[in-house]
Amino acid sequence: MTSLTLYSPAGVLAKAAPLKLAARRLTALGFEVQIDAAALARHQRFAGDDDTRLAALHRVATQAPGIALAARGGYGLTRLLDRIDWKLIARSIERGTHWVGQSDLTALQLGLLAQAGLGAGAITWAGPLACEDFGRSIDAGGVDEVTRDCFLEAMSGALEAVGFRTEAGFDGLEVRGTLWGGNLCMVNSLLGTKHLPRIKGGVLFLEDVNEHPYRIERNLLQLHQAGVLDAQKAIALGEFSAWRKSPLDRGYTLKTVVQHLRSVTRTPILTGLPFGHVPTKVTMPVGARVTLLVQQRDVLIGWDHRHADGGQRDHRHDHVHEHAAPG
Amino acid sequence: MTSLTLYSPAGVLAKAAPLKLAARRLTALGFEVQIDAAALARHQRFAGDDDTRLAALHRVATQAPGIALAARGGYGLTRLLDRIDWKLIARSIERGTHWVGQSDLTALQLGLLAQAGLGAGAITWAGPLACEDFGRSIDAGGVDEVTRDCFLEAMSGALEAVGFRTEAGFDGLEVRGTLWGGNLCMVNSLLGTKHLPRIKGGVLFLEDVNEHPYRIERNLLQLHQAGVLDAQKAIALGEFSAWRKSPLDRGYTLKTVVQHLRSVTRTPILTGLPFGHVPTKVTMPVGARVTLLVQQRDVLIGWDHRHADGGQRDHRHDHVHEHAAPG
Repeated sequence: MTSLTLYSPAGVLAKAAPLKLAARRLTALGFEVQIDAAALARHQRFAGDDDTRLAALHRVATQAPGIALAARGGYGLTRLLDRIDWKLIARSIERGTHWVGQSDLTALQLGLLAQAGLGAGAITWAGPLACEDFGRSIDAGGVDEVTRDCFLEAMSGALEAVGFRTEAGFDGLEVRGTLWGGNLCMVNSLLGTKHLPRIKGGVLFLEDVNEHPYRIERNLLQLHQAGVLDAQKAIALGEFSAWRKSPLDRGYTLKTVVQHLRSVTRTPILTGLPFGHVPTKVTMPVGARVTLLVQQRDVLIGWDHRHADGGQRDHRHDHVHEHAAPG
Repeated sequence: MTSLTLYSPAGVLAKAAPLKLAARRLTALGFEVQIDAAALARHQRFAGDDDTRLAALHRVATQAPGIALAARGGYGLTRLLDRIDWKLIARSIERGTHWVGQSDLTALQLGLLAQAGLGAGAITWAGPLACEDFGRSIDAGGVDEVTRDCFLEAMSGALEAVGFRTEAGFDGLEVRGTLWGGNLCMVNSLLGTKHLPRIKGGVLFLEDVNEHPYRIERNLLQLHQAGVLDAQKAIALGEFSAWRKSPLDRGYTLKTVVQHLRSVTRTPILTGLPFGHVPTKVTMPVGARVTLLVQQRDVLIGWDHRHADGGQRDHRHDHVHEHAAPG
């Protein structure tokens, strides 16, 4: 039975119910679920003060459960970045821990990639959050089946690729590189700091929520002006959700942003990745080497699960598998 | 009579009336006002497409009026940064042009400082925008007198300092350095790119609008993690206006942000600068060498107007004065 710890590295949980519902559902899915002692801590808008959240992060890393699933995002990792024991996190991954999350967790995932360097100890998982995805009430739609199944299969090692439909015009594209990215605002919040990994020839995926297209464009142009976009082999855009139109837009939309970006960088920009602040999202290995293939309008991002599971050192394969199989 | 050109480098003007009202009022104040041919151009949310706005910027620089006052901010300069002829802008300043604005204009002001280097040709003016400050209807409060007078005196060369009240605890502080900064989001949007000036030992001023304190904190922490805050001699915070509380804040406020920042950097952080997206704002020379003095709770940021007016080369004093005196 795979152990799974729920912990809170960022925003406060307004209520305990979603976390408890998530714990029950994950238990029913076959995980041995533990809720970290400080998961419900409260300090202003944070799930405990900085020391509390940092201690929780390090405690989970020391315990090294099969899966470390963040309760929610919000805001909080930025305050911890300069204090995180990256080697401790990397060691937990080498011992088999799958760190899963998105949104504010992007800072943890990319900070690790920047500090621990590419390799088995720096692979984490862009995927669901406990409260938002497994704690969603039945009235609000319950657990998304695609999100759940993709998470389960990625954790067990059965999943080796995610697929989606994109726009016409990329038929035949085939690239290999490091998969990285996450929440666009969070990626940009690392620019100019030592916490941004310097990935060349990678596959960069991005999503965001509550951001008007002009802000999405400004962030993407900053990545371009910083040399990041041109240095990638492909860019996969996820969902940019929950923004509100302005009377000043006059026809300026997300499509305008993508068109403009395509006019400034030659790196292929694919849309349609099912990832972001939406119910249906894939789970993918951040920091792993992937192949991105396009056939007509079908995109496949594939990885070798032995590599994604920290198996770049061969003797570790079995050990990792043992920890990674749920149920 | 000082010539003053109104032009639109960024967001579209929803209506022509505020610009025309601003032109009438600035004429009444003694300026010879010209409205750039493309000031009312429209392309989606922009005041004309990129080529139109870039041409306007270069046209104004070539004409080199006494004052180049932006109609409004919004979003748009980010798209132009890689294409601006910085030497042309710098030459206009050496010929006597005062480039004035704030908000999105921060990108122009700091980009110039980064590309043209410190010196007489890189000094611009953080101050009012035409529509927002001189085009405000009587019903909405009309023109703010402090903003108007400070602008007039700064343009004429009569103003050599701005003063404000800050919190207790900084009595006796005295630093000298380059004044720079502007809109926090825009400063951060330059991080990691060649358009961020590398100012050491400076006086950094910052403001923002519509940004929740946690986003202000995230941006300030990014500046810290990028080494920018520690490299300054002082930081002056202006107004952070028009943000909305969240039920998740639980006591987390702008004060929390300032306290947290003071716990991570030893650079003095002064609050109370009258600058931002508010009616009352000072006009100050970006890129000029200033002295910041604190006596009890009174702060004075002073500059030598001969230097701020491009007079670092002595033979230029008279020439500049001639152009800079309004009326």
